[in-house]
Order: sequence, then structure tokens, then C-alpha cells
Amino acid sequence: MRDVYIVGVSQTPVSRDSTVHARELATTAVREALAESSVPSSRVGALFAGNMTGGILDSQSQIGGLVADYAGLAGIEAVNVEAACASGAAAARMAYLSVAAGVHDVVIACGLERMTHVGRDAITRALATAADWELESSKGESFLSLNAKLMRAYMEKHAARPEDFAPFSINAHRNALTNPNAVFHKEIGVDDYLQSRIVVDPVRLYDVSPVCNGAAAIVLASADVAAGLLGAGRARVVIAASSAATAPLALVRRPDILHLQAVETATQKVLLQARITHADIDFLELHDAYTIMTALCLESAGFVARGTALELGKERRIALDGDLPLSTMGGLKARGHPVGATGVYQLVEAFLQLSGQAGPNQVKNAEVALVQNIGGTAATVVTHIVRRVG
Amino acid sequence: MRDVYIVGVSQTPVSRDSTVHARELATTAVREALAESSVPSSRVGALFAGNMTGGILDSQSQIGGLVADYAGLAGIEAVNVEAACASGAAAARMAYLSVAAGVHDVVIACGLERMTHVGRDAITRALATAADWELESSKGESFLSLNAKLMRAYMEKHAARPEDFAPFSINAHRNALTNPNAVFHKEIGVDDYLQSRIVVDPVRLYDVSPVCNGAAAIVLASADVAAGLLGAGRARVVIAASSAATAPLALVRRPDILHLQAVETATQKVLLQARITHADIDFLELHDAYTIMTALCLESAGFVARGTALELGKERRIALDGDLPLSTMGGLKARGHPVGATGVYQLVEAFLQLSGQAGPNQVKNAEVALVQNIGGTAATVVTHIVRRVG
Repeated sequence: MRDVYIVGVSQTPVSRDSTVHARELATTAVREALAESSVPSSRVGALFAGNMTGGILDSQSQIGGLVADYAGLAGIEAVNVEAACASGAAAARMAYLSVAAGVHDVVIACGLERMTHVGRDAITRALATAADWELESSKGESFLSLNAKLMRAYMEKHAARPEDFAPFSINAHRNALTNPNAVFHKEIGVDDYLQSRIVVDPVRLYDVSPVCNGAAAIVLASADVAAGLLGAGRARVVIAASSAATAPLALVRRPDILHLQAVETATQKVLLQARITHADIDFLELHDAYTIMTALCLESAGFVARGTALELGKERRIALDGDLPLSTMGGLKARGHPVGATGVYQLVEAFLQLSGQAGPNQVKNAEVALVQNIGGTAATVVTHIVRRVG
Repeated sequence: MRDVYIVGVSQTPVSRDSTVHARELATTAVREALAESSVPSSRVGALFAGNMTGGILDSQSQIGGLVADYAGLAGIEAVNVEAACASGAAAARMAYLSVAAGVHDVVIACGLERMTHVGRDAITRALATAADWELESSKGESFLSLNAKLMRAYMEKHAARPEDFAPFSINAHRNALTNPNAVFHKEIGVDDYLQSRIVVDPVRLYDVSPVCNGAAAIVLASADVAAGLLGAGRARVVIAASSAATAPLALVRRPDILHLQAVETATQKVLLQARITHADIDFLELHDAYTIMTALCLESAGFVARGTALELGKERRIALDGDLPLSTMGGLKARGHPVGATGVYQLVEAFLQLSGQAGPNQVKNAEVALVQNIGGTAATVVTHIVRRVG
């Protein structure tokens, strides 16, 4: 397996603008990432798209080939990789594998989602395809109701109060303030959190990431190619490890719904592959689609003991200057969650941090990031360790 | 890159039975392929699903994780790979790459599609998502109308008559007669072909592959694992080369609609990787979704000169005992075309031929197969060379 470098990144501003044009978003991201990398397009061997709802909401499948063509890369290998909300990182993992295997020297992973052009019911139905249709969605469960079930179970088991979850949301909103690509630029406090509408008890509006549109792209290259490029960030940020794991889609098929087995497995695998421990991680980009998901991920990944994740927030350890910064550019909660694109946004943001380009959001001396993207209620978990080298 | 062996295969009978259960089809195929391989399920590292319409017609995304769980493989890496009707082979290619790269020693590729439970309009709309929505589908084009456009252009350019296309269809139906997994068991002749209904001029009913349900699976393994297995076919069939290429989805964006550039590129790549020439190929499994697609593939892949593909049929060279057997188990036309599963069915059939298990359909002394699966009107083309060794 060869080393794989991130040599260019790009992201379109995450938005809820229903007039955005899906293929334009994606081609903008791909073209800009490529331009930033200074790799000529003729050297690109493949494009791996991550998209969840194109076929359902946009009547458009085969998005890999479509984006390749419109981005000026017609002819190259291209597919769409789908694992619900983990599609972006799943596409990045396939891109990583193809370079690591020596099949391609330069590839692009592009996450893309357009959702706000349809009504709320259509969006809810599209998102519910990530759950087990027979056991969950067809019985009226939505992503919201499933996360509410998790949050309720967690609060009962660990005697957690609503305000204990607030710090995750407050932190994400604070970090998004200075991220020009975030959908929200609005600071919130505990009172705002507690006063926000209860959507499905006990989930409040401020526990939930917003449905958004957006596209992001990363250019991956072999060490040889990366070494030939000049400029900040390039030949300096490497994907040190990549893993994926699954769990049953349906919560009723899991022995313990408060333990995300796929998060544990995927995290252990990347730490092993990168030959590091939890203590080596300088910041985390977790899948904070819901505050309860953040808590469960922190525990299942082994960063804190079970039942103690909410302490991290209370102690302000998750802030940019804390010992375990989370959602450094706003996370899914406040940067926004264009589902199939989210995993690539996370990698773009990790790259910006590790190459010292995160501006006011910079985590000091950041060298190692764990980036985790989740499909469903952690039915698919794709995890990367990204590291600054040299 | 390591050698990659096919060590087990399975297919469910292709059907138009609207009561079939998608996850049961897939889990049956996966479990049977695994049992046939005699690899214990604990050794399987990943499952790559190929499915096109699950999210659209079955409200089910994240099919990789779903199938892994129900097939008794909960926990492993799993994703869905989508490239319209090339999804099956695209999934197989990702599976191949993960073994070739050394990431996994044993993986499964599983193609799955369920389509006949919805009405004709819904099926047509779902299939049309493979075309360019903005330039084609939204303007009323369907897969049928696009293939009719290709066939009309071909007939005009090369002065071809309707009956010239008949041999492809007749050959497929003849081969399907003795394939128990084929959807059609009905011999047809030139008169049947000519008397069949014109669906969209000049495309006749017998030019078109049927919409079907089905699932197929292959188990891929490294040389080390394959060498440890006993039994016919195992450790004997290798994927000698794998490639993918794309072209613009929309016909209007192609300089010459009668030349399938992605077919040419993907074919040249696999021949180069396998270090063979066209003359070394013993039989072809092409994407005969339409008879015109067979003709264009034969020409664009370089097996015959432009404008001469129809001669092959007239000269009976495509029969099982010809020098270039096509659709040896019935092809898409008569085995059936469960779209996202088709590419895996093709690989299963190539395996059966190369391991001498094709029964009455056996191509004598078959050693090398070219297997080509196509998305859209050849917008995504995934090609494999499969070879008998030792």
C-alpha cells in the first residue's frame, strides 16, 4: 500500500438556497480543488462521487460520470459510492484505496448533495431510506424519531438533563461563526438551546443538524506526485489510515443501542493502522448530525468512558483551545449537513487545519485528526486519520 | 497489486415475480456464494453491493450495510456502488481493488435489483435517471428512445436492415433455453423477431432486454486464501484485469454517438493490463441491453471494424461453437437484466464457463473471457478479463 496525500481541496458554501444547481456545485468544487492542487486535469485517473439522494430527489443517477464530464474530466473512471450520510467519506475511502493500491496516481473524491428544492416530506422520506425500510421507516420511524429514541434511552440510563447536551451545539455554532462556508453564523447560548422547540421529545431544534446543499472535493495523490507539487499544504498532509465498518441498520437488531459497535470497530482499525492511540489525536471531526450522536460517538470510539461524554462539553474541553476540539469549522450542526457531501467537507476542514489554513478557527499545533462520517444511526462508519508530515 | 481469484459464485433465478423480497434475494446469493467457496464468513472483510434503484423504488438506501447484516456478516466494511446499469461490475471492481491492494483477503461483490413490483411508468422514470436529466430525461427521453436514436443512426449510416440485428437476439434466446436461471426459455427465429412489436421505431420488442429482479454474488480472494481452498473452479479462475471509463451521459455531448469512447478506453485498458490481444478472448459477455448496444460495443471495443458488427451474427460466429461466442448464458436479452445485478451475473457466468461448469452452454476450451457491463448509453463502462489458470 502506498502513502496517499491530500494535495488540493475545495468546498462550496453550504446553503439552503433551493435554486442551486447540483452539477454546477460539484463541478465548481472539483475544478477548484484541482486548480488549488496545481495538478493538470490530464493526470486525474478517477473520480469517486459521494451522493445519497440524487436518484430520489433529483432524478439523477450515475453522478460519477456526470460530474467527471462536466468538470472537464470526461473519459476517466468514475462511480458514485453510497452509504447514506456516510457516502462522502465512503467515496473518499474508495479514492484512497485506488491510489494506495497503485491503480491511479491522482484521483478526486467529490461529495455532493442538493436537498432543499423539495418539500419537507420528500426530504424526510429520502433521509429515511437510510434506515431499515421494513423494520423502521415503513413503520413511521424517521431519522429524527430514531435519534430521539437514542437520546431518550441515554438520558434515562445516565440521568442526563437536556442542558447537558447544549455544549455540543453551542460549540459548533461558535466555530461556524468564523467559517465563511458554514450555513449558520449565529452564536447561541444555553438559554437559546433550552428555549428551542422540541421537535421530537427529547430532541430540540438545536440538537439537530440542518438539511442543506453543498459540494466539496479533495484531490488525492501518490507520494511521487505530491512531492512534485509546490505550495502550502501540499505534500504535507497524508491520509495515515482509513477504515470502514457496519452495524445492523435497524436499532432493534442491535444488542445495545447505546453502543455504536461500528464506531468502535472503525476507530480501533484506524488507530491500529496509523499506529497511534487516542491521546495522539489533536482534534476530531465527528458526525454531529444530532447531539446524541456526538455523545455516543465519543464513547463508542473510546475517547471517554460510557456515560461520561457530556462531561467533555461542560468542562469546555471541546473548544478550539481545549484538549479535544470538536466540529472545528462548525460541524454538521452549524457548518451544515448536505448528507452525501458531509464526509468530504470534514476531510477538507481537516486538511485546512493540518496545513495551517484554518484562519480564526485554527487549532494550534494540530498534527493529527480523526475524521468520522456516519450513515444511518451508525450503520455505516467510515473513519480516516489525517496527519501533517514533514 | 496482488492477484485476485474468484472462489465462489451464486445467482438467484432472474425473474419478473413481483413478490420477491430484495434483501432475501441478496442474502441468498451471498450466503450461497460463500458456502460454495468454503470460506468461513468470519474471514470476509468487505461487501460491495451493486444496486441502482433501491432508494428510488424500494425506499432503501445503504444497501451495503443492510445486506451484510442480513447475510450474517454484520460489522464488515460495506457500501453500495452505483453507476446505473453498470453498478454490478462497478461494485465488483471496488471489491477487486480492495483485495489487489491488500486491504482485504476475502471480499464479496453482490449485485441486486428489484424492479417489477412497481408500474411501468415508475420503472421507466427510475431507469431514466441513468441519462442526463437536464439534457435528456427531463425532455422526455427514455432509455428506449435513446437506444432507438442510436439504432436509427446506425441503420442510416451503414444501410442496415432490421433483420440484420435479429441474430443477436436469436442467439441470446437460444443460449438461455438451457440456463435454468434465465428469465426466458423460449426459442425465437427471424420471423418472430420481424413480427415482434415495434416499441420505439426502429427498436422491436426482441431488441430489448426485459426488466427483471435478481441477485448474484461472487467471492473474491487473494492467492494465499484461494490456494488453501479445495474444489472445482476454486484457485483456478482469476480476474486478470479490471478497468473503468466514462463518457458524457448525454448523447448530445458526444462528438460521434456511434462510437462508444468509454467502451474503447475500458477495453484497451484491460487488454493492456492482462497483456493479451482481442484474438486471445474465447468468449464475450457484453452488455446486450439492446441489440444496437451489442453492435456498437463489438465495434467500439475493436473486435470488428466499424459498420461490420452485424456480419458476425449473419455468419453465426457468435454461437457457442463460433469463434466469438456472445451472451453464452442468454445475456441481458434472455437471461434478463436486473440492472444493478447484471454485472455480477455476467461475472458469475464467466466463472461457470471458465471452471467448466456451464453444462450444455459450455464454450469448449474456454480460457479467457472479456466481461463488459455498461451504465446508460455507455456513459460508464466497467470491463474485466477473467481467466482460467493452472
